[in-house]
Amino acid sequence: MIIGIGDDCAVLRIPAGHEVLVTTDFTIEGVHFRRAWHPPEVVGFRCLARGLSDIAAMGGEPQAAFLSLAVPRNLPQAWINRFMKGLLGLASCFDVTLAGGDTSESPQNVLADIVVVGFVPKRHAILRSKARPGDRIYVTGELGGAAAALEKFMAGRKALPKDFPRHFHPDPRVKVGQFLRTERLASAMIDLSDGLSTDLAHICQESGVGAEILEAAIPRARIGTKENEVDLDRALHGGEDYELLFTARRGKRVPNRIAGVAVTLIGEITRRRRIVLKSRNGKPSPLRPQGWQHFRK
Amino acid sequence: MIIGIGDDCAVLRIPAGHEVLVTTDFTIEGVHFRRAWHPPEVVGFRCLARGLSDIAAMGGEPQAAFLSLAVPRNLPQAWINRFMKGLLGLASCFDVTLAGGDTSESPQNVLADIVVVGFVPKRHAILRSKARPGDRIYVTGELGGAAAALEKFMAGRKALPKDFPRHFHPDPRVKVGQFLRTERLASAMIDLSDGLSTDLAHICQESGVGAEILEAAIPRARIGTKENEVDLDRALHGGEDYELLFTARRGKRVPNRIAGVAVTLIGEITRRRRIVLKSRNGKPSPLRPQGWQHFRK
Repeated sequence: MIIGIGDDCAVLRIPAGHEVLVTTDFTIEGVHFRRAWHPPEVVGFRCLARGLSDIAAMGGEPQAAFLSLAVPRNLPQAWINRFMKGLLGLASCFDVTLAGGDTSESPQNVLADIVVVGFVPKRHAILRSKARPGDRIYVTGELGGAAAALEKFMAGRKALPKDFPRHFHPDPRVKVGQFLRTERLASAMIDLSDGLSTDLAHICQESGVGAEILEAAIPRARIGTKENEVDLDRALHGGEDYELLFTARRGKRVPNRIAGVAVTLIGEITRRRRIVLKSRNGKPSPLRPQGWQHFRK
Repeated sequence: MIIGIGDDCAVLRIPAGHEVLVTTDFTIEGVHFRRAWHPPEVVGFRCLARGLSDIAAMGGEPQAAFLSLAVPRNLPQAWINRFMKGLLGLASCFDVTLAGGDTSESPQNVLADIVVVGFVPKRHAILRSKARPGDRIYVTGELGGAAAALEKFMAGRKALPKDFPRHFHPDPRVKVGQFLRTERLASAMIDLSDGLSTDLAHICQESGVGAEILEAAIPRARIGTKENEVDLDRALHGGEDYELLFTARRGKRVPNRIAGVAVTLIGEITRRRRIVLKSRNGKPSPLRPQGWQHFRK
């Protein structure tokens, strides 16, 4: 499929009748990770996971990755080796080839820019802009787990990979995205990188619609040995869970489990262009996108 | 052609019977430019020019660009606006759409990673690996002009854009590359980003051949009002000229001007795997790749 590394460009062969998907994401030390908090393998893993998740959110098939990596002169080679191990390990899980990139010296921090190229049958990419009033709103997995890990770090404690799998090893929902596309279930889709409130607002804005979400329906991550549910705020506004948020026309039968991942109905698209959260007693309140700043308390 | 910005991925439509080209290049403050030396428009222009030049070196057609840009918090918005003006100005010259990217805060320096996606008819990309003994070696334009500008900066003087056009506004040789492909003239090709000695070594290594270059034939850049020729060393080892270096089978008639750009025969591919420079009196000496470090004196 690929001529690849060692020339001016990589040459990718795309199957006939398909379109090309391209996504690019920064991973910056001090913004997206800290060397004191995140083992290098985890940084490499999450770097690629972000790109794969974008391909998943289009219902696409990832094909090749390109890594631009700038590191400070004094960074140990072992750090880079372990970073690459984490990245390439995830790449091999998805049959993705590292087909190129660039390296450079960075004055101070580690900086990685990951590009993932994939493909999707022509006109079948699942866009953000196709939600319609009456569509049901679904989310995969559980929300708020990744933000809870950062909260713990910010409080000066150590968050362990076994307690926070979605933070340390987010699993891009590529299979789920493809199933939703091949079964023509999803009308619109986005991946949850900025948090439910912000990413739902993206769908609503691109589609020119509003939404009503049921507080009681939101699947909250359970964390630690006691499996405590995260706060509602974490589940509503926490970023980097890399789950999928999608809509489906009212009549569609959406399984409650796809490719081993829970799928939960959390609300409905409305004609009125505002996003409303309905509490357990039925009281509506506006759900404002809070954005996601990685290291904000 | 493009669904583009505002979704998880850009969706590109590639013409039937074509392959996808992807290239990615860092532009890092303190490594590739300095804010004191380079106006923001120039930084943006050169950032994209690097990617377009890679597409040119495959004989490809550029289609879309993706910019990941990280800037320090205190960078004036005007700097970014002027950077984008330089980048988008060049993009429009080549009908290239800015189809996505990422933005982030950077702890200290400006960092840009440019991705350019293009296409080329199937199996017609001009690779580095197809040079054969007996092939003639050609170069476009003049060499060493970009390095001469840096030399002047490093000496503490000001290099002006009008004196060093190839440094400030390198013109990616896209039309030349396409002509060489459609006329089936080039057997192997690379763009001169690291300097003639290094980039010729790439072709020789990938093709498993050697080369003999005639010192007298190398087109040296003329700079300043006096139009002095640059030193031979600059022309042999200076980087960032973004001219094309290509080989053509012995019988091919290569025009001495393509798309308005001079094309010069500088040597020949040899079976013996070493690169030799022949002086004006015919004396051969080994030509060692010296690499190109941007701010090295």
